[in-house]
Amino acid sequence: MLIKIINPNTTWAMTRRIGDCARAVAAAGTEISAVSPSMGPASIESHYDEALSVPGLLEEVERGEGEGADGYVIACFGDPGLDAARELASGPVVGIAEAAMHAASFLGRGFSVVTTLGRTRGRAWDLAAHYGFADRCRGVRACEVPVLELDEPGSGARELITAECRAALVEDQADVIVLGCAGMADLAAEISSVLGVPVIDGVAAATKMAESLVALGLRTSTWGEFAPPPAKQYVGLLSEFAVL
Amino acid sequence: MLIKIINPNTTWAMTRRIGDCARAVAAAGTEISAVSPSMGPASIESHYDEALSVPGLLEEVERGEGEGADGYVIACFGDPGLDAARELASGPVVGIAEAAMHAASFLGRGFSVVTTLGRTRGRAWDLAAHYGFADRCRGVRACEVPVLELDEPGSGARELITAECRAALVEDQADVIVLGCAGMADLAAEISSVLGVPVIDGVAAATKMAESLVALGLRTSTWGEFAPPPAKQYVGLLSEFAVL
Amino acid sequence: MLIKIINPNTTWAMTRRIGDCARAVAAAGTEISAVSPSMGPASIESHYDEALSVPGLLEEVERGEGEGADGYVIACFGDPGLDAARELASGPVVGIAEAAMHAASFLGRGFSVVTTLGRTRGRAWDLAAHYGFADRCRGVRACEVPVLELDEPGSGARELITAECRAALVEDQADVIVLGCAGMADLAAEISSVLGVPVIDGVAAATKMAESLVALGLRTSTWGEFAPPPAKQYVGLLSEFAVL
Amino acid sequence: MLIKIINPNTTWAMTRRIGDCARAVAAAGTEISAVSPSMGPASIESHYDEALSVPGLLEEVERGEGEGADGYVIACFGDPGLDAARELASGPVVGIAEAAMHAASFLGRGFSVVTTLGRTRGRAWDLAAHYGFADRCRGVRACEVPVLELDEPGSGARELITAECRAALVEDQADVIVLGCAGMADLAAEISSVLGVPVIDGVAAATKMAESLVALGLRTSTWGEFAPPPAKQYVGLLSEFAVL
Amino acid sequence: MLIKIINPNTTWAMTRRIGDCARAVAAAGTEISAVSPSMGPASIESHYDEALSVPGLLEEVERGEGEGADGYVIACFGDPGLDAARELASGPVVGIAEAAMHAASFLGRGFSVVTTLGRTRGRAWDLAAHYGFADRCRGVRACEVPVLELDEPGSGARELITAECRAALVEDQADVIVLGCAGMADLAAEISSVLGVPVIDGVAAATKMAESLVALGLRTSTWGEFAPPPAKQYVGLLSEFAVL
Amino acid sequence: MLIKIINPNTTWAMTRRIGDCARAVAAAGTEISAVSPSMGPASIESHYDEALSVPGLLEEVERGEGEGADGYVIACFGDPGLDAARELASGPVVGIAEAAMHAASFLGRGFSVVTTLGRTRGRAWDLAAHYGFADRCRGVRACEVPVLELDEPGSGARELITAECRAALVEDQADVIVLGCAGMADLAAEISSVLGVPVIDGVAAATKMAESLVALGLRTSTWGEFAPPPAKQYVGLLSEFAVL
Repeated sequence: MLIKIINPNTTWAMTRRIGDCARAVAAAGTEISAVSPSMGPASIESHYDEALSVPGLLEEVERGEGEGADGYVIACFGDPGLDAARELASGPVVGIAEAAMHAASFLGRGFSVVTTLGRTRGRAWDLAAHYGFADRCRGVRACEVPVLELDEPGSGARELITAECRAALVEDQADVIVLGCAGMADLAAEISSVLGVPVIDGVAAATKMAESLVALGLRTSTWGEFAPPPAKQYVGLLSEFAVL
Repeated sequence: MLIKIINPNTTWAMTRRIGDCARAVAAAGTEISAVSPSMGPASIESHYDEALSVPGLLEEVERGEGEGADGYVIACFGDPGLDAARELASGPVVGIAEAAMHAASFLGRGFSVVTTLGRTRGRAWDLAAHYGFADRCRGVRACEVPVLELDEPGSGARELITAECRAALVEDQADVIVLGCAGMADLAAEISSVLGVPVIDGVAAATKMAESLVALGLRTSTWGEFAPPPAKQYVGLLSEFAVL
Repeated sequence: MLIKIINPNTTWAMTRRIGDCARAVAAAGTEISAVSPSMGPASIESHYDEALSVPGLLEEVERGEGEGADGYVIACFGDPGLDAARELASGPVVGIAEAAMHAASFLGRGFSVVTTLGRTRGRAWDLAAHYGFADRCRGVRACEVPVLELDEPGSGARELITAECRAALVEDQADVIVLGCAGMADLAAEISSVLGVPVIDGVAAATKMAESLVALGLRTSTWGEFAPPPAKQYVGLLSEFAVL
Repeated sequence: MLIKIINPNTTWAMTRRIGDCARAVAAAGTEISAVSPSMGPASIESHYDEALSVPGLLEEVERGEGEGADGYVIACFGDPGLDAARELASGPVVGIAEAAMHAASFLGRGFSVVTTLGRTRGRAWDLAAHYGFADRCRGVRACEVPVLELDEPGSGARELITAECRAALVEDQADVIVLGCAGMADLAAEISSVLGVPVIDGVAAATKMAESLVALGLRTSTWGEFAPPPAKQYVGLLSEFAVL
Repeated sequence: MLIKIINPNTTWAMTRRIGDCARAVAAAGTEISAVSPSMGPASIESHYDEALSVPGLLEEVERGEGEGADGYVIACFGDPGLDAARELASGPVVGIAEAAMHAASFLGRGFSVVTTLGRTRGRAWDLAAHYGFADRCRGVRACEVPVLELDEPGSGARELITAECRAALVEDQADVIVLGCAGMADLAAEISSVLGVPVIDGVAAATKMAESLVALGLRTSTWGEFAPPPAKQYVGLLSEFAVL
Repeated sequence: MLIKIINPNTTWAMTRRIGDCARAVAAAGTEISAVSPSMGPASIESHYDEALSVPGLLEEVERGEGEGADGYVIACFGDPGLDAARELASGPVVGIAEAAMHAASFLGRGFSVVTTLGRTRGRAWDLAAHYGFADRCRGVRACEVPVLELDEPGSGARELITAECRAALVEDQADVIVLGCAGMADLAAEISSVLGVPVIDGVAAATKMAESLVALGLRTSTWGEFAPPPAKQYVGLLSEFAVL
């Protein structure tokens, strides 16, 4: 089984770490391909970045169909382009926020999301509501470390994130933590061991969810909304995206 | 006051009709500029089309800032790119679904949306829920006429749309109708006169809402989420979208 | 176009200020008539006051029909008598809480209301829920200054209100402020300039909304609920309110 | 214990039947006083009627305080003036829609309301939502018989109402029926026996609820919102309503 | 009228106090029978305890049918086995959380629950949501005193509970208090008199609600879900529970 | 990895089929143990049956801890005893309704449940609401075939279920089907192939979900509500369930 993980930003160092996190949980027999698109933003920290990450993401889904991908993971916590990707893909498509929030629901009464910049909290709340978790999501907290600095030695990110997770347990009455950025994937185990509660990395969760759906023989319904997009002419810079 | 109306599809014949509808309701002193983007789909009939209409739309907002636009209208019923546009624009940005649903709420107990293709109903429901109208939206009905055929003499669109509007009153217990496509803008008055209930065209409603917000001196809050996007490198086909 | 603004309390000094605020935003060609009823409470600070402000308000709507009013604004933040007024009026009727909350929804992710007395907060929450904004309303805060003292030099109202607005941004995670009393109409611009976020005065917002609906040719649906009230005998003190 | 039942319309024939229904369920030792106000509409069939029934209702609550009433029932299915009455009364105040919907919740999974005129359905839905029963209320159905004709021999009301109740069981998946008008109080037992499901008359339900709250020593909280209204000058026709 | 109150735990000292509280509010002519089951946990402080209290509870309902019980009260704040009991009983069945939350809704804008152990808060929230009071329930607070120590002289329970009730008024913006354990039944009057707000004991509230429903001639609907359970073979330790 | 699947009814023929369905989707290296409890009902068709299936289920969880189970599946669509089982188990516990509804959410816009008896629909709706899927659940339909007849040659179950699934697509606007009984596990593939939409069997879905959570190193949070139950004395028939 081939699961294609698309990191919608163009920072390959992050993409490689995402791929490693996915491979660490994949079943024997599951191949992981982790890629960044050929176009778009270096990181996703605004609605603008998110919207502009989608064309490159869709190009990779289209390419994945030729590569024989059985399922897809969108590895950005805003789940950009999820509905559009589902129209293109013949296998299931899973967002990391989506998978993480669903997983959290099996493990406790309520979760808080700990993310990077405060300005992205609105998107996390929108997704929680859209997926049905308006009540189970107890808080969305930001550590105010930019995405590409999460990994920098001097950023203090690890400590700041752990502190927000602890605050979520006490102040939000959460009993499960969801890490709100693909760049935090490698922190989940450590924070879980420090705090003694489940801490969910969306990349790992989405990988298992995509793998499970493929194993179950399930894919996106084509009854109506998510059928392949109708043929359409495209012009200008995006003319290559025309639907034939 | 300059209100820039962006039809996110690239069909200029439709754009011109949209501009005319806006001008018909604008106040004295309000200038309307109606444009299509330089790139993207000829019409928007899938999540895929919608996602790919956004780069061209954002390019037009960016350009509008140089043109002195005081406010913006996004003239596609899926309200594509609305959050991203709000980060870019110095004046208010209004979506036509957003404006139409808000207007409907002042006029009755519940509205139904009558739109083009059944596959777009999910998006309309998502927007209704997002804007707070999950309860007031009584139904989303499709006439199954493609967007670019709405205007064709033999399409029967007018009759099919009117029939769905009538069904909404009787079967959905709606008392207000929202037309769910910018391409239907010129039908509102006629259907209203046939059925005797308010029928709302989102283009006209959004034009007045944008104009009103400008007159009130109000614009999108920059307290957090909708502040201008942070500087960011972009690569590949979309490198021109970099934030400097 | 004639927009009739009814301040449901009988304090004409306040009514005159309300009229001035409305005129300041009205379009060229819009005439504003601002009145208080002939009967009822000097200010509205309880459910009791609110209920008893309605007969006088309805009398003014009835009178407005003879005066040629094209639309109406109810200028008390509890939106008293809104549904009943809609049955009487041939043009649209807009409440100031209603208009302010709707306007806020176009400008950010969530708003807080800052009002006069704590005992009126429940009504504001009821309205937010009724209009669909249970989620977008982040808080309702009171400065505990009685309505008729808002304007008194020594009341400290300006400072107390500004402090609550600031607290709303920080503690409620609101990014837009709604002023919760028609008597605060003239404070919006100043507080907005101090805090750097949109601050909405419902009188101005409702004036533009009523004006817009009239310009769009839209009025309350008469399909069922809001049709003119059926003929009815009235007795006693209220016998003049009989429906003929 | 004295329970004062206020029928907010001025049709004493109906008031007397309401009193009889209440007495039929009251405990030994509970005295029932059933009155109509001195002013207002002959029946309540619009938002306008409802708003104008409130002054007379409040006058009766005020008078009830002098009469030693221990609790109050508002016997119109729109529950007019309920919040205001709670500010005035020293004992609990119960609306008949409120009591009926609460009672229904103890008896099954979901209820439908069967009422008089279709135009009042919106109010019933508003109340269901306000009381927390948006999900449990499965439908609001109208038999289109005016309130004052319910009792007329040739009106066919009994058959029409029974037919709507039956339809509610089959089409709305309701398992409990709520009769949506105080004028239907004497039909509950018969329809229940015909259909074999609980049929709730709000007058009886509210009488028992008011009686229970009094027996429990409970009254409306005065912590904030429902404290007695602040002193206030009133002018004109309503000057007698001033709060001293 | 015979109301059978089943305390689902097996601590008869608590059961006797519960019976006394019920008798203190019952009408003349209402006989109260308060029992503990023959099997199950000494107190209910986990989902595990709650699930295992249900067989004994159902045995008592079955027995109550032979005893001529007209209605039932389940006297544990988790309302265990309520739906199952309704299938068995020929009269109405009322849970004490259910009755207390409903009663609170008649008395103010919002209530907080003050309960024993923090680990039971989730269940209280689930019940609030299930009954329709997700919005009216403002908080669920724990005093962290085990159920069977509530009555111990040195436990400080009275002071801890009162302190949480006071905090609920100030921090949760509640105006009514619901005591979240049958073992607190005798504290309601005292705390109410200290704080000056309604404090509701679910045992008393449920007793009056059951009594009222019986007086109204109402019982659980058998239209579908709550009809008597179908005949069924049971094996092993629970074989006596077979439905014949 | 050992996943223990507990069919809470005592019909071993059904349990064996459930085990086969689970093994068909389990990963290499996952061992499936499928059992029925030693006590309880032959099938679960009422709230009464469901409540009484829980003691035997909990006994099997307790036993599973000694057997080295890494995760658990509760294989009845009412998800009986789920919260209690989570307190006992050291690994994750997944209900089949829970897993099926979550899986459906990744595959389309809305699902309908097709179940056995109409009287169990209420429970399915309760679960959908509890898990966050009140909006995504478009309908719950019953084929009115008792659980233990699903497999009988002459029952016509296959045709009746398929017909309800088809009706769900057309009438409920569902695009995914959830089969609402563990006894339907072997029908999913066939109905999916007939209707061309995803059809989800909860047993398979829950097996993969439990397996995934174990692979991710995640288990129920013990931060508060789901910590092991406190020590407790039990008496009578259930004394063996005492917590030591």
